[in-house]
Amino acid sequence: MKSMKLLTDRRKFLRSGALVSLAATARLVGLPFSAGATKKDNDGHTFKPLPAEESLYMIGPREGYSPYIGSLVSMMNYNRYTILELTKGLTMEQLDHLQDAQSNTIGALMMHLAAVDKIYYILCFENRKGFSADENQVWGPALELGDMGRQMIKGKELPYYVDLLTTQREQTLKTLKEKDDQWLLAYDPNFGKTDKFNNYWKWFHVCEHESHHRGQISWLKKRLPGMKDAKD
Amino acid sequence: MKSMKLLTDRRKFLRSGALVSLAATARLVGLPFSAGATKKDNDGHTFKPLPAEESLYMIGPREGYSPYIGSLVSMMNYNRYTILELTKGLTMEQLDHLQDAQSNTIGALMMHLAAVDKIYYILCFENRKGFSADENQVWGPALELGDMGRQMIKGKELPYYVDLLTTQREQTLKTLKEKDDQWLLAYDPNFGKTDKFNNYWKWFHVCEHESHHRGQISWLKKRLPGMKDAKD
Repeated sequence: MKSMKLLTDRRKFLRSGALVSLAATARLVGLPFSAGATKKDNDGHTFKPLPAEESLYMIGPREGYSPYIGSLVSMMNYNRYTILELTKGLTMEQLDHLQDAQSNTIGALMMHLAAVDKIYYILCFENRKGFSADENQVWGPALELGDMGRQMIKGKELPYYVDLLTTQREQTLKTLKEKDDQWLLAYDPNFGKTDKFNNYWKWFHVCEHESHHRGQISWLKKRLPGMKDAKD
Repeated sequence: MKSMKLLTDRRKFLRSGALVSLAATARLVGLPFSAGATKKDNDGHTFKPLPAEESLYMIGPREGYSPYIGSLVSMMNYNRYTILELTKGLTMEQLDHLQDAQSNTIGALMMHLAAVDKIYYILCFENRKGFSADENQVWGPALELGDMGRQMIKGKELPYYVDLLTTQREQTLKTLKEKDDQWLLAYDPNFGKTDKFNNYWKWFHVCEHESHHRGQISWLKKRLPGMKDAKD
């Protein structure tokens, strides 16, 4: 039964400081605070615990969204929470650290997640094919990563990246509230050439793409100078 | 519009050899082959293209499953496809390569994905709290990774890992066919202590956890001896 302990440990990791984190993250991802008594977090801020049905570990419909879109939003919220938890407390030096000459920094990967949110927003909701020249100045290096990302994305503290992520996601969630499940499931003939894509795939991909880079951020974080031995 | 090209390239990457891969993957993950004319893949095997509604890029309900479970299955199929695509053609030497003393090999990470599928199956469908002693002999190192994984998981060719993944996933998909959406959305009071978890979260987590480690496999693969320069 050793394996069960491991799973428990993993959940403990995810829940470490859960009360504080749930409140902070809920503010970031725009979750409602309506149920439960007012409490104080470790920083002395008052907040109300999430209603049970809004637990990050209850995937499913969410108030204010059509049922399938709400389920998708609950996944996006959970994944975003894990990114914010994983990067919490990182310094500018750590965010700018390069593991090797071909690596991306953790800061660049965080901005990349915001850039992917933004480009899918443009493709899905603004009927444009990509960034404008002005947008590309800001977002191009984060979308592209690699050499351009290494040159351009540095010298910022954690709140810079969290704000980029949060601002873009708020816009996405607001627009998703205006859509319905028929839109979500619909085939988009203008997206892709050899395969059929629907809107659910696009936003599921934005969501699971955060897990992809979370795996890399986790790997890189454990190898930051002064960190404990890495496990994965 | 440079960024659009990047997205197109990314999709091209995902679709590289898509016709063959869709067919092969569909066999692996148990997707039906019923529509379209018979074609031949690069190995000379005949297959029928997937029906359009079964495109890996159309997330949503699937025949044989309740609507929400089918949507989840479509996500699991897509993510599994990306793992099989990413690891296609890797040799035993590459699967066993250690990036550094604290790394897991790509082979160990693949077996880890099968182990997580298995432990969640045990927890969700067999009303057990973890592996039996016998199961732990086989699966413990893959679930735990780290030192035990590095010692125990090696010397196997790619089909060994693909078979483990496929066999366990077939069992999961078969059992998901017997469940309904009420079960998927239901709160499980026996899972977790401080937060509320439902079955949808458990299997979404199994799914997005594949993306997490896909990010690491991608990072490690690009740094295998003889591989091209890494981009992320």
